[in-house]
Amino acid sequence: MDREITLDDIESLAVGAWVLGTGGGGSPYLGLLNMRRLYREENLRVRLMSPDDLADDDMVAAVSNMGAPLVGQERLTDSRTIARAVALMEEHTGKRFRAIMSLEIGGGNSIQPLMAAAHLGRPVVDADMMGRAYPEAQMTSVAVGDLTPCPLSTVDVRGLESIVDKVPTWKWMERVSRKICVEYGSIASTCKAPRTGAEVKKWGIKYTTTKAIKIGHAVREAQRRHEDPIEAILSVEPGKVLYRGKVKDVERRTTEGFLRGRTRFEGMDEYRGASMEIAFQNEWIVAWRDQQPIAMSPDLICVLDSVSGEAVGTETIRYGQRVTVIALPPPEVFLSPKGLQHVGPRAFGYDIEFRSVFA
Amino acid sequence: MDREITLDDIESLAVGAWVLGTGGGGSPYLGLLNMRRLYREENLRVRLMSPDDLADDDMVAAVSNMGAPLVGQERLTDSRTIARAVALMEEHTGKRFRAIMSLEIGGGNSIQPLMAAAHLGRPVVDADMMGRAYPEAQMTSVAVGDLTPCPLSTVDVRGLESIVDKVPTWKWMERVSRKICVEYGSIASTCKAPRTGAEVKKWGIKYTTTKAIKIGHAVREAQRRHEDPIEAILSVEPGKVLYRGKVKDVERRTTEGFLRGRTRFEGMDEYRGASMEIAFQNEWIVAWRDQQPIAMSPDLICVLDSVSGEAVGTETIRYGQRVTVIALPPPEVFLSPKGLQHVGPRAFGYDIEFRSVFA
Repeated sequence: MDREITLDDIESLAVGAWVLGTGGGGSPYLGLLNMRRLYREENLRVRLMSPDDLADDDMVAAVSNMGAPLVGQERLTDSRTIARAVALMEEHTGKRFRAIMSLEIGGGNSIQPLMAAAHLGRPVVDADMMGRAYPEAQMTSVAVGDLTPCPLSTVDVRGLESIVDKVPTWKWMERVSRKICVEYGSIASTCKAPRTGAEVKKWGIKYTTTKAIKIGHAVREAQRRHEDPIEAILSVEPGKVLYRGKVKDVERRTTEGFLRGRTRFEGMDEYRGASMEIAFQNEWIVAWRDQQPIAMSPDLICVLDSVSGEAVGTETIRYGQRVTVIALPPPEVFLSPKGLQHVGPRAFGYDIEFRSVFA
Repeated sequence: MDREITLDDIESLAVGAWVLGTGGGGSPYLGLLNMRRLYREENLRVRLMSPDDLADDDMVAAVSNMGAPLVGQERLTDSRTIARAVALMEEHTGKRFRAIMSLEIGGGNSIQPLMAAAHLGRPVVDADMMGRAYPEAQMTSVAVGDLTPCPLSTVDVRGLESIVDKVPTWKWMERVSRKICVEYGSIASTCKAPRTGAEVKKWGIKYTTTKAIKIGHAVREAQRRHEDPIEAILSVEPGKVLYRGKVKDVERRTTEGFLRGRTRFEGMDEYRGASMEIAFQNEWIVAWRDQQPIAMSPDLICVLDSVSGEAVGTETIRYGQRVTVIALPPPEVFLSPKGLQHVGPRAFGYDIEFRSVFA
């Protein structure tokens, strides 16, 4: 199975991946602008391939932008930067990649593999390693699976290029690559540890590009028909509404290469009188309703514009916005004890026992 | 010209290079212990070759430990770490090095190429790129010559390995590699930008290994004969005595991957009643006598134990030590306007016009 991704698919992907971004992964908007140009002006096309069609010894590039989403908004994307991160990895390892995939399907990082693929003429694999977005290197299915964390290449638009060649652990990969990223100015295009086809088939979170396109398509169709776009999301994904309200307060700081903070909400409609507070580290991590933790990572906490149904990012959320907070179920891999060690609330510093919205 | 370096040469090198280290470059002691073991127990030998014997297209590895010398004292050296930095560079570039040289002849970094050479079976080139020690990447003859600043490999004993593959400027190389080094714990073994034989012959500071051995030999001979070891240094190098006194105060902090601070002295003998203060960033940078700047980089400011004649490092200097401060002349390359931009007092943040002790 191998098909051309249409520009309409990419428009849907941008909307759907932003929902799966759970506030982070960076806005897909700048990436979308790049893809419109590459499709319309340079007449490039990207093909989507099933992970099942990978040979066991195929090499797959896992790409993402890392850094603070707020900076990603301010520094314009050049589509060649992520392609260079992939090419640099090929130069360093001496091995050619069969295909390119997302490290995280959430947010702008859903578009990064498409930009690299367009320039390099390779297909994109319909899978990722998070099924959402997460801020740190060890928060992936492949880290839960204890696959090799290295090497990693980092590139920026000014011609900075570095490689983290070896590290003893995923946490060390996070530490060293984060410092490089911060010195670049808190945003870097990266090609993460190359994966074999066998590894992608075993540890990849499959068909998430298709899933993001489907969610985005549902939102866009509902918008076109003036129907409720949040209902549309819940008709294609088994999610739950947690809250409706407006933004009362945003506390936000760009620190150590992350965007951290809290947002407080005031309830509306059936949630009138109920407070909500959500803490974030790039992504929405823990949500408290009336001071009780009611949703937490790895469950996906999605803050959506109540009217358009489009996601609201932690870097753009602002006072007065009317939002609906929903939860979507997480990938299986994060629900094991090992998975929860990597991405449960304690991995983010919250001393809370994980309880799923969907339990 | 190509000769075996004897263990006695290395004993002298450790003493002489510590004098040329101008307080920094790290104590050569741990490297010396490694070389004693490699010579005595593993029966390895290192050859010293003249830079004049390099073919123009030979590739030469320039190695050094980077970081805060105080940390280098605390974390024991493994001689294979610097060899691995060289091997990693060969893997990355796909080119074999003909020989290995010091980035800086000052301090322990004079011994680093010997350790790499012993493990890898290559000769050491009798030259370096500083003629002393300096704290930052852009403070070399090759940076003054605007040669390519990259790539650079960094390795540590725990198996951390990174490569800074491309940077637009030497300052960017300093910035990115310093952050990696700090994350490693403020010490890393590095192989700097590979140089061709032609570049070493044009921009290398020649015969500095031999010079360091000569200085060390003079000190050790004077010690053996109970003669004045400082007189002995001045008999082989055209230096000047600036001060004699004892250490009154040391202000020292490990910050941003450097050891920074000031030392204050109280005059003795013919300097009784005269104060001295020397500011350092790993190395002694500016010396004030009675509040007047009397010596500054690129002149070499060497603080020596008045009795043994051995150098005193910025990481080990302590209250009450009796010292003699001498100046030695700097390499020519740093005296040009471009050279002074890289290593003159303003490069370290002191708004002082350079005036040489030897003018």
